[in-house]
Amino acid sequence: MVPESKPKYKVIGTRPIRPDGIDKVTGRAQYGADIHLQGALQGRMKRSPHAHAIIKKIDASKALALDGVKAVVTAQDLAGQDGDVSKLPYAAQNILAGRKVLYRGHAIAAVAAINDHIAQEAVNLIEVAYEVLPHILDVRESMRPDAPVLHDALRTRGPNPSDAPTNIVAHTVAAFGDIEKGFAECDVVVENDFSTKMVHQGYIEPQASTAYWAPDGQLTIWTTTQGSFPARETCSQLLNHPISKIKVIPTEIGGGFGGKISVYLEPVAALLSRKTRKPVSIRMDRVDVFEGTGPTPGTSIKAKLGATKDGRFRAAYADMAYENGAFPGSAAMYATMVITAGYDIEHVKLEGFDVVVNKPRTQDYRAPSAPAAAFAMEQLVDELSEKLGIDPLRLRLMNASKEGTRGPMGMPFKRIGHEECIQAALNSPHYNTPLEGSNRGRGVASGFWFNVGLRSSVNVSVQPDGTVNLIEGNTDIGGTRASLAMQLAETLGVAFEDVKPAVVDTDAVGVNDVTAGSRVTFASGMAVHEAGKNLIKELTARLAPTWQASPEDIIFEDGVFKTRDGGKSGAFKEIAAQVVGRGIALTVSGSVNAGFLAGGGFAHAIVDVEVDPETGKVTILRYTAIQDAGTAVHPAYVEGQMQGGAVQGIGWALNEEYYYDDNGRMANSSFLDYRLPTSLDVPMIDTIIVEVPNPLHPFGVRGVGEPGIVPPLAAIANAVCRATGVRQTQLPMSPRRVLETTLGIG
Amino acid sequence: MVPESKPKYKVIGTRPIRPDGIDKVTGRAQYGADIHLQGALQGRMKRSPHAHAIIKKIDASKALALDGVKAVVTAQDLAGQDGDVSKLPYAAQNILAGRKVLYRGHAIAAVAAINDHIAQEAVNLIEVAYEVLPHILDVRESMRPDAPVLHDALRTRGPNPSDAPTNIVAHTVAAFGDIEKGFAECDVVVENDFSTKMVHQGYIEPQASTAYWAPDGQLTIWTTTQGSFPARETCSQLLNHPISKIKVIPTEIGGGFGGKISVYLEPVAALLSRKTRKPVSIRMDRVDVFEGTGPTPGTSIKAKLGATKDGRFRAAYADMAYENGAFPGSAAMYATMVITAGYDIEHVKLEGFDVVVNKPRTQDYRAPSAPAAAFAMEQLVDELSEKLGIDPLRLRLMNASKEGTRGPMGMPFKRIGHEECIQAALNSPHYNTPLEGSNRGRGVASGFWFNVGLRSSVNVSVQPDGTVNLIEGNTDIGGTRASLAMQLAETLGVAFEDVKPAVVDTDAVGVNDVTAGSRVTFASGMAVHEAGKNLIKELTARLAPTWQASPEDIIFEDGVFKTRDGGKSGAFKEIAAQVVGRGIALTVSGSVNAGFLAGGGFAHAIVDVEVDPETGKVTILRYTAIQDAGTAVHPAYVEGQMQGGAVQGIGWALNEEYYYDDNGRMANSSFLDYRLPTSLDVPMIDTIIVEVPNPLHPFGVRGVGEPGIVPPLAAIANAVCRATGVRQTQLPMSPRRVLETTLGIG
Repeated sequence: MVPESKPKYKVIGTRPIRPDGIDKVTGRAQYGADIHLQGALQGRMKRSPHAHAIIKKIDASKALALDGVKAVVTAQDLAGQDGDVSKLPYAAQNILAGRKVLYRGHAIAAVAAINDHIAQEAVNLIEVAYEVLPHILDVRESMRPDAPVLHDALRTRGPNPSDAPTNIVAHTVAAFGDIEKGFAECDVVVENDFSTKMVHQGYIEPQASTAYWAPDGQLTIWTTTQGSFPARETCSQLLNHPISKIKVIPTEIGGGFGGKISVYLEPVAALLSRKTRKPVSIRMDRVDVFEGTGPTPGTSIKAKLGATKDGRFRAAYADMAYENGAFPGSAAMYATMVITAGYDIEHVKLEGFDVVVNKPRTQDYRAPSAPAAAFAMEQLVDELSEKLGIDPLRLRLMNASKEGTRGPMGMPFKRIGHEECIQAALNSPHYNTPLEGSNRGRGVASGFWFNVGLRSSVNVSVQPDGTVNLIEGNTDIGGTRASLAMQLAETLGVAFEDVKPAVVDTDAVGVNDVTAGSRVTFASGMAVHEAGKNLIKELTARLAPTWQASPEDIIFEDGVFKTRDGGKSGAFKEIAAQVVGRGIALTVSGSVNAGFLAGGGFAHAIVDVEVDPETGKVTILRYTAIQDAGTAVHPAYVEGQMQGGAVQGIGWALNEEYYYDDNGRMANSSFLDYRLPTSLDVPMIDTIIVEVPNPLHPFGVRGVGEPGIVPPLAAIANAVCRATGVRQTQLPMSPRRVLETTLGIG
Repeated sequence: MVPESKPKYKVIGTRPIRPDGIDKVTGRAQYGADIHLQGALQGRMKRSPHAHAIIKKIDASKALALDGVKAVVTAQDLAGQDGDVSKLPYAAQNILAGRKVLYRGHAIAAVAAINDHIAQEAVNLIEVAYEVLPHILDVRESMRPDAPVLHDALRTRGPNPSDAPTNIVAHTVAAFGDIEKGFAECDVVVENDFSTKMVHQGYIEPQASTAYWAPDGQLTIWTTTQGSFPARETCSQLLNHPISKIKVIPTEIGGGFGGKISVYLEPVAALLSRKTRKPVSIRMDRVDVFEGTGPTPGTSIKAKLGATKDGRFRAAYADMAYENGAFPGSAAMYATMVITAGYDIEHVKLEGFDVVVNKPRTQDYRAPSAPAAAFAMEQLVDELSEKLGIDPLRLRLMNASKEGTRGPMGMPFKRIGHEECIQAALNSPHYNTPLEGSNRGRGVASGFWFNVGLRSSVNVSVQPDGTVNLIEGNTDIGGTRASLAMQLAETLGVAFEDVKPAVVDTDAVGVNDVTAGSRVTFASGMAVHEAGKNLIKELTARLAPTWQASPEDIIFEDGVFKTRDGGKSGAFKEIAAQVVGRGIALTVSGSVNAGFLAGGGFAHAIVDVEVDPETGKVTILRYTAIQDAGTAVHPAYVEGQMQGGAVQGIGWALNEEYYYDDNGRMANSSFLDYRLPTSLDVPMIDTIIVEVPNPLHPFGVRGVGEPGIVPPLAAIANAVCRATGVRQTQLPMSPRRVLETTLGIG
């Protein structure tokens, strides 16, 4: 089924109450820290005070002598006789540092004790002898040959491999057309250097994990995670323990945004449990979260964009250096996939540099790598618009990618909604209302994220009353219990209330990849649709003998089974109850591998700001988020995703940053000093949902979690520039920076 | 697949360690009382002190005024505006008495308070005004027209319906041949009157349930139960709440034996939770269990058996009155199905009387109704053996039912193992060792139980390493996680360790009937086998393109997939890992309705006793249990079932009884006074497993949980008779009774 124009749906597009809502608003939902097993020990991590140092010696004897302390583990235990961390050496080193610590907050050891107070005391009693090394925090400096090297064995992947130790993980080049020729054809070329700081996803719930390693080797892990199956896989590899001996029970999750894909505490709790034969819970505090998990990279981007005088983009270039933190990643590679994807540009050359620095290992954060890339490119587009005297939205519309345009990895786009988003922005009440008043400016920006598919698997069981249970394996972060149940209800032609979703553990459903990449409503939705079709087929086969018809003579339309001759008919629920009521249970599966690329989503932002000329403080006056949802399964959740992305983008643009002192220590590792926007800081975010059905999905769904965070950084910078006349090339646009740049002293 | 001779199995017949063993022996397994939800209230039941009374008034005002008391519920709440108990009026009245209390311990009201102490105090503050009525405890007296009537509306079902109120629930008649003619043809006829007392299953774990009725109507129940799906169904009907709004999470279960099929606390906890908006836990103490749950009926059986002088049984008659307790049941009907099923007797007339009395509503207890019936019939067989001078085992062998003999409900038996069991007894070391010493006697007896099939449904998921998860819906009482995993391993040709079983809640798997009737290893085993076959078919289909073969060209044999030409092959685990590793999850289901009758199982007992002539105490010297397991999936569990049945039968025979005072109050409602046998009271029970494969099951399995409790009552009575010369017609054969009967003063 490939919907081009949106079909009439009965359930999709409505706004039912989420099945997990009551538990969550009444405090009954169990999050990571709510797991209290009888006799459980409490774990604590010992973390590095240094940004870069050799560990000379770890002496845990005083800690172990403390009354109530039951065990201490270090990297030795992880890589010990049972462990075989060769498959994931960097992941292992990040979880418990071996020879070196590579960032402030890097975990070195863990303690299990009878309570948290004793565990904390014991952590302080662990004596670590360090040889402190010079550290490197800046991504460009880290690329220099004379920079302190983090990993002796690291060599650059890419077209120019080097034999010398380096901090450059990979040099990715994506080139199309002839970049020299392209710029030569341009009438106007703009370029600039941009930089953004490391920021954190800022999920409200800190990481918390509990593990129990039973004497028969059965390991059970309760954890707040974006992926119970990937967590099982990683723990299996790190602990060299078969996945069939590991059960991961996902708790509810208080936000992740990419930051709860990796494991941190799970294998450590498991090791402590194996040593102590008791369950062990480890809970991070906020400092642990800031210093010991995976924020998103700071960046340095040199970008250049050229157009002919009639406004056609001809050539684009970018040199993008992305912090990987202490261990190799692929953030810059992602950046090459997205920075120019919104536009049809013949000549493009994109270079990405993934670079290690002495900061926490970076991780995904909503549309990973795209916001910083858009911060650069969308400001260049804005500058072109000013220079060419073309309305910034119309300039984007003229150049927007559409079906057939070259997209990420050189693959042509299928049907996408960039033009429609820009058109919606042009038509919006916001854009058609003049902004009045001094020190005010309006900015716009586009954003793109490619979205992923991957593997999903669900089971559907029919109950004796004809209702169905939907059994899923993906943690529900953004309302996917509801969005999947709605797709099943649509497939079966039943009411939303007749589908009861449940998220189960890794033993109770087939393999599911992470709840990330905006994939669950998309890919698990495909699995749900497949399961629904399978169920209809099974019911048809079981109905046939009763109706004295062949299965081929029975059709299913609009939720009703009927014989082709119209002689017999019955609605799904009635037929399902009859068939199951005859005493046969009925469970079917739907499993898909929805591939890597999932069709791509576009977002747009219009933002009005006022800049206080005395303090430099930027106030968001009005914000409209526009986004192509393909098909909005549950419009209220789509709006929530758009608003959440906008607000996180506002925080990133204006206030958030990892602020380091000279010793490489984060100086603001609390929510008092690391300033997330509060409800007082932002206006109501207006939303406009665009629906250009995704041809890859039976209901036209596109992932919606990510594109919304891409435009705000650039849109706000463009607005500040229109308000002040000064272009903002560095984030955050804190009052001090805005004041200094507008006063010309920055 | 219909195995007649036992095939070679690789996994079936081995004795692996049970997957739930570690958790159970280390105390980590969660039983009913281990559910502690945050903010949960504690519930307590108010119970009747009278055996029969009209409830004039319930005044809960003082209870509700007590600090910490949050709610009180009565039958009003159960049958209130939301409830519609018309479908299950007796069940509802048993859970909370309405107009009348019908037995001592009958629940009248329930309290929820912030802790158990306050709840207990509040229960005492509930004031109930009673009009005490005459009560009736004896089953034969209750059948008399002048007996106090329990239910005004009750009329007898059966061939002689009456218009007058009665305590006779049903009169069941099963007649074959010509009973008059049959007895006329006999050379020897024996007859006697027998009676047995009400006994309790004596499971170690008292009932305990927790319910949370969320504001959106979603009701979650955690409970120790033999059937999470039937519990859901019953609660749905009692509470008039859709099953799709109810999730039952079964905890581990500390014994049930039939006593944990019915719900008692679940709907009450649900009502209290709905009133208080908090989770409510109710836990029974032992007095509650004895007085407020479902023991098994006391009986009065008049039986008569005749044979020709060469030892052929020609005619049998029985008049069997079974206590139903306070509410109608069908125990006597069951008795008509089993009492003569072990023998090929042409002329049979069996009458069953189900009778209400002022005692707790009776429930199943291992092979329900059969032990008391065998207590009568197998003593008559013993008496015939003495009179005819034929060895008691040989007499049974001459008359034993075999394939084709008329069985329960007049249906001819398929292949059964009664003859083989008797032959095994004849060949046993025990029977071939003479019993020496004075005051000693050896008794034998046969036992039969029909076993049931019913509905089972399982899911099987393949993991990326080629291991499989087996997802079940039946609480594991006797080791069924293992016995089902073994059958799946056998089907797939993999090791037991490569199958990981899990018992899940009612939302996560298809419908499963009770864990009872010895059905799970049998019927869920069939579902497992079907799921395994489905999985092989699915894997074959997915393997075919890779092997460039058609699915028809791929065969699966001995755990190996191979092309017919032998060109390609791979073991299950390897192929499964490959197929799933390519990124598609794979879950399949197996669902069966295995019907009501499941083939039938026979057991035999040989028991040596010594009777102390001074005290009347009966000591069990030696006991051999023989049983046809069809195919013993896990022989150690089969032996455990046989030994457990024997020990419970010994307790029933010698010590256990509900002992009532003149006011209809149970006088021994504690384990100090209600004497279960301890390990000091019984010798090691020897076991002989007979394996006559059940043609109804792909692996020849028969349920094994029940037949073992059928023979011991009669076998011990026969042994005591041989030791003392006095036939024991009443249970329990306590020291006092044995002494009095042997002294002729009983």
